[in-house]
Amino acid sequence: MTTLSELNGCDAATFTDRLRGIYEHSPWIPERAAAQRPFANATALKLALQAVVSAASLDEQLGLIRAHPELAGKAAVSGQLTAESTNEQAKSGLHLCSAEEFATLHKLNADYNDKFGFPFILAVKGPDGQGLTRRAIIATFTRRLKNQRTDEIAECLRQIKRIAELRLNDLLGITLDFGPTIMQWCETLGAWSDTDNSTNEDFDLTCAYMTPAHRKTAAQLLDWMREAGMDTRIDDVGNVVGVYCSDAPGAKTLMTGSHYDTVRNGGKYDGRLGILLPIAIVRHLHRRGEKLPFHFEIVGFAEEEGVRFKSTFLGSNAVTGRFDPSLLDQTDADGVTMRDALLAAGHDVTRIPAIARDPAQLLGFVEVHIEQGPVLLEHDLALGVVTAIAGSSRYLVELTGLASHAGTTPMNMRKDAAAAAAEIVLLVERRCAQGASLVGTVGQLQVPGGSVNVIPGACKLSLDIRAADDAVRLAAVKDVLDGIAAICARRQVEVSMQQIVDASAAPCAPRLMQQFGAAIERAGLPRFDLLSGAGHDAMAMAAITDVAMLFTRCGNGGISHNPLETMTADDAELAAVVLLDFLRSFHPA
Amino acid sequence: MTTLSELNGCDAATFTDRLRGIYEHSPWIPERAAAQRPFANATALKLALQAVVSAASLDEQLGLIRAHPELAGKAAVSGQLTAESTNEQAKSGLHLCSAEEFATLHKLNADYNDKFGFPFILAVKGPDGQGLTRRAIIATFTRRLKNQRTDEIAECLRQIKRIAELRLNDLLGITLDFGPTIMQWCETLGAWSDTDNSTNEDFDLTCAYMTPAHRKTAAQLLDWMREAGMDTRIDDVGNVVGVYCSDAPGAKTLMTGSHYDTVRNGGKYDGRLGILLPIAIVRHLHRRGEKLPFHFEIVGFAEEEGVRFKSTFLGSNAVTGRFDPSLLDQTDADGVTMRDALLAAGHDVTRIPAIARDPAQLLGFVEVHIEQGPVLLEHDLALGVVTAIAGSSRYLVELTGLASHAGTTPMNMRKDAAAAAAEIVLLVERRCAQGASLVGTVGQLQVPGGSVNVIPGACKLSLDIRAADDAVRLAAVKDVLDGIAAICARRQVEVSMQQIVDASAAPCAPRLMQQFGAAIERAGLPRFDLLSGAGHDAMAMAAITDVAMLFTRCGNGGISHNPLETMTADDAELAAVVLLDFLRSFHPA
Repeated sequence: MTTLSELNGCDAATFTDRLRGIYEHSPWIPERAAAQRPFANATALKLALQAVVSAASLDEQLGLIRAHPELAGKAAVSGQLTAESTNEQAKSGLHLCSAEEFATLHKLNADYNDKFGFPFILAVKGPDGQGLTRRAIIATFTRRLKNQRTDEIAECLRQIKRIAELRLNDLLGITLDFGPTIMQWCETLGAWSDTDNSTNEDFDLTCAYMTPAHRKTAAQLLDWMREAGMDTRIDDVGNVVGVYCSDAPGAKTLMTGSHYDTVRNGGKYDGRLGILLPIAIVRHLHRRGEKLPFHFEIVGFAEEEGVRFKSTFLGSNAVTGRFDPSLLDQTDADGVTMRDALLAAGHDVTRIPAIARDPAQLLGFVEVHIEQGPVLLEHDLALGVVTAIAGSSRYLVELTGLASHAGTTPMNMRKDAAAAAAEIVLLVERRCAQGASLVGTVGQLQVPGGSVNVIPGACKLSLDIRAADDAVRLAAVKDVLDGIAAICARRQVEVSMQQIVDASAAPCAPRLMQQFGAAIERAGLPRFDLLSGAGHDAMAMAAITDVAMLFTRCGNGGISHNPLETMTADDAELAAVVLLDFLRSFHPA
Repeated sequence: MTTLSELNGCDAATFTDRLRGIYEHSPWIPERAAAQRPFANATALKLALQAVVSAASLDEQLGLIRAHPELAGKAAVSGQLTAESTNEQAKSGLHLCSAEEFATLHKLNADYNDKFGFPFILAVKGPDGQGLTRRAIIATFTRRLKNQRTDEIAECLRQIKRIAELRLNDLLGITLDFGPTIMQWCETLGAWSDTDNSTNEDFDLTCAYMTPAHRKTAAQLLDWMREAGMDTRIDDVGNVVGVYCSDAPGAKTLMTGSHYDTVRNGGKYDGRLGILLPIAIVRHLHRRGEKLPFHFEIVGFAEEEGVRFKSTFLGSNAVTGRFDPSLLDQTDADGVTMRDALLAAGHDVTRIPAIARDPAQLLGFVEVHIEQGPVLLEHDLALGVVTAIAGSSRYLVELTGLASHAGTTPMNMRKDAAAAAAEIVLLVERRCAQGASLVGTVGQLQVPGGSVNVIPGACKLSLDIRAADDAVRLAAVKDVLDGIAAICARRQVEVSMQQIVDASAAPCAPRLMQQFGAAIERAGLPRFDLLSGAGHDAMAMAAITDVAMLFTRCGNGGISHNPLETMTADDAELAAVVLLDFLRSFHPA
C-alpha cells in the first residue's frame, strides 16, 4: 500500500518504481508523468497517467498493448503473468475454463492476433469491480473481433487505462463510498424484466410502462428512497417521488431524477442511474444528519421511452402539467388502453392533472444520465456537462402497395411496399449523414404478416431525426418527407404518416452548467461540455424550470439501448461526488 | 332470345342489329366480326368480337370506353342508360346507394375522369354472375384510380369484353353446367379462415396447415367428393383423397388435384380451384352413370404454401414418398411442433411414409390452377397450357448489427441491420429485373422488437428467386448472395442464411400438354402455352410421374395471394369443359 502524499513526495525513480505494476511492463508511463507532481487527488494522477498513454506514439501504444498477455493464454498456463494479471484473470475464473471454453478462447486469441497483430485486452474486472463472467468475456471477445483495427487499438488502450485505474485503486487503498452501491442497485433492478428470461441465454431487460416488472421496480425505488430518509409516494401516472425535506423556512425545491422504464432489451443504467445516484447521496446525507437549505426531490419518472404506447415522456409531462389525457385511449400491442393499464395498477387517472408542480416553487431540475454515446469515452473523461438536448422529429410511416404473387408478377408490374421502405431507409441514412450533429434512424421496420412468396402489400416503419440545431433538423425532415413522397409516387405505393414527436432543442441553463462545471473541476477533472443527442426527461422539465444535465461515460464504444450498455463503479463514484458537491455549494442564481 | 345458328345464318345487317346491345353504343364491333361467320360455338363468337376491340385503333377504343355511362352517374339518375346498363347497375344495388356512397362515387367519377379523360368501367356483375357489392365496387374504383393511364385503358377494355360476355350469355340463353357450382364452392371454403374476421371490414382468408379452418375445409372437401360419387379418405398428412373408380380390368390411375391451404390473406381460387373443378366433373359423370377407362383420383393436398412451418409441398411430397420426417420437429410461431399439430388433428405420423404412391400405377398427374399472373389476362384468353414450372431458390436471412441509441450514435459509427437489409432488398429488385422470366422478392422483412429510438441490431428477411431457366436463376442467386456478403462486410453486419427451397424448373410432359391443347381448340379457343412462375404441387408430383397443368385466367391485373384474386364463372366453365373433354379422350401414350 502506498499513499498519494508518498507518491507526490518521493523522487521520480521511486515514483516510477512504485507505479511499475500499474501499466503492464511499461515503466515509461509513470516516468513521463512524474514531472507533473504533485497531484491534487487520485483522479488527477489517473488522468495524468492516461494522458501519457494518449500522447504516446502509435508504436509506443502498440508496444504497450503487446506487453499484455493473452487472456487465458500460454503465459497464464506457464505462470509467466505479472502478479496483477494473474490475480485479475483468476478473479474472473479464467483458470476454471472448461475444455470447450479454453478451445474457444484459444481460437479467438489466434483469430484476433491474425487480424490485428496484437493481443486482445479486456479489463476482466467488470464495471462493479467484480470479475466478468467467462460467458461475458467470450461474448465481448467475439464482438470486438469484428471491429476495424483503428477502433480496436483505441478500445485496447481504453481497457488498459481501466485496468490501470483498478490497479491504482488497489495500490492506494481507495474505497468508493457511492459507486458500488449504485452499481449493485442497477443490477437488482436490471434483473426484473417483462420478458421471460428463463430459457434465454442472453438476458433481455425490458421494463415497459405499467407491466409487473415496472411496478415491482417502482415499489423497490420507493423502499430505497424511504430507507434513505425521504418522504415518498407513487403518483397517479406511476412516478416514484421522494423528498429529502429541508428545515429551512420557506425552502423551495431542487428537483432531480430520471426514468425507470427501459427500451426493449435495453441497458441497466439508462434512466435508472439518475434516480439511484441521488438516492445514494441522500442516504449519505441522512446518515450524517446533514440537511440541505432546500427541499431535494428525486423523481423516478414512470415512462420516457415510448415502448408500450405511442407516446413518450409520460412521467415528466405529468410533472410539468402537460400530460395529454387523450393518450389514455391509446392501446398497446395487445389492445389494452393506457387507461385500463393504469386502472389495473390502482391509479386514478382523474388525479393526473394534480401531479403538475408549481414552477414558482422550483429552483431547477438537474439530471444525471449515462451518455449513451461515445464522446466522453473517446475523450477519456468520466463526466461531461450537457449544453443542450437535441431536438427530434419522429414519425410512423405506413406504406400500402399491392400484395401479389412473388413468382408470377413481373418485376416491372410490382407495387412492392418493402422495396419502397428500403429506399426510404437508405434515403434517411444518406440525408442524415450530411450534418455535424444530425442523425436519422429507421428503428422499426416490418412487413406485417409477410410471406416468403408474396410481394409485400404493406410495410410499416418509424422515422427518428435529431439535431442540435432545429433548422438543420427541420431541413433534413423536409428533404426526407419530400423524398418519401417522390419514392412512393414513382412506385405507385400509398403512404400515410403520423408525426409522434416534434421536440425543439432544449438548451441547458448556463447558471446550472457553471455550477456543475465547477464541481467537476474540484473533483480533479477538466470541465467538458457536450450535446445530448438523446432526449431526456430534462427536455420535458425545461418547460417549467431551468434544467441541467451531468453525463457519465458510456463504455463498450458508447453502446446504449442494448444489454452491452456499461459504465464503471469509479465513474458512478465520481458522478456522485460531483453531484454531492454541487448540492452542498448550490446557489439559486 | 337468339340462337347461334340464327346469328350464323342471317345477313350481316341483322347480325349487327341483333348484337347491338352487346357492346354499348358501338355497332361497329359486330359489323366487323360478321364476315367471320359461321362461328363453331359461342366461345368462338365471343373471341371474334373481342378480337375486333383489340384490333381497333386507340381512338376507336377510347370511343368505345366513352360510350359507357358513369357508374351511378347522371345518366343513371336521368334514365338515359341502355336497358342493359340499367339492369346491370340495378342488380348491383347501385340505385340503393346511401347519400354517403353516392357522394363517394361522385367524387371517384370526377377524379377518375380528371385523371384519365374517360369514364370508369367495371363489370358490376361479379365473377359468379351475381352483382358486386357496393363496397367491392367502391374498393375497386379507389384502387384503379391509382393506376397508370395505359394500364387503365387496357383494364377498361377488358371490363367491356367481360360485360359483353355476360350480355351475350343472356342473349343466347347460355347456361353454365359447372362454373357457378365451382364458384359457389370456392365462396363456401373462402369464408373459413384462421383469422377472426368478425371485426374486420376486409375479410382475410388465411387457411394454414392443421388449423381449425383447415380441418373444416378438409371435412367439407371429403363430403363433396363423397356426394359426387367417389371413394374418399383423409390421409395422415391431411390430404383429402377421392377416387372415381373405373370398371376397367387392370385400370391404372390418372391423378389430379391441388392444395387447399392458403397464404395469409390469400385468394379463394388459388389451389382450391384445382380440387373443386374435377369434383364438379366427377359429379357430372357419376350422375350420368359414365365411367372412365382409368381410376380418376383427386387429391386435395393439405399443404403447399409454407405459411405455418418453414416448409412447403408437405401434401404432395408425402404422395411422392419424399416427405422429410425431420420436418415434424419444426415449430410454428407459437412453438407448436408439426408433430403435435398433426397429433392434435388425430393423425398418425408413423403412417406418413405409407402415403407414397406406386409410380407404376400412375398414368400422370394434371393440375388445374388459376394463373396468378397477368399473361392470360393480357392475351384475352381464358385458358393456357403450362410448359414448365419455374425453378425457385428461397432463403431466410438473419442480419446482426449492433443495437444502439438512435440519438447518440453518429451515422458513421453505426452497424444498422435494417440499413443492410434495405440495400439487400434493392439489390434483389435490381438484379432480378435483368432476365426475361427472372423474378426476385423479399416477402418477409422485420426488425424484431424494433423501437423508434434504437438503431436496429437485427433484421430478418426472406429471399425468393425464380426463373424458367435454372442457369439464369442460379446466376442471379449467386450475384445476390455475393452482393449480400459485400454489403454486410462493408457495414460490419453479420449475416446468416438458411436455404429453404432449391427447386429445379419442372418441364411438363409434351404428351399431356398436347392433349390439353387439343381439348382447348375443340372448345373454340386457341392453344396458348405459358410458363408458370409459381411453384405448384405438379412440380413435386413430377418426381414420380408425368405432369401437366391447365391455367385459368386471373382477373384484376393478375393479382393473386391477395383477396383481390378473382376469376369468372365463364372461365371456370371453359376449364371444366376442357378437362372433361381431356378425360374422355385421354390416351396414356
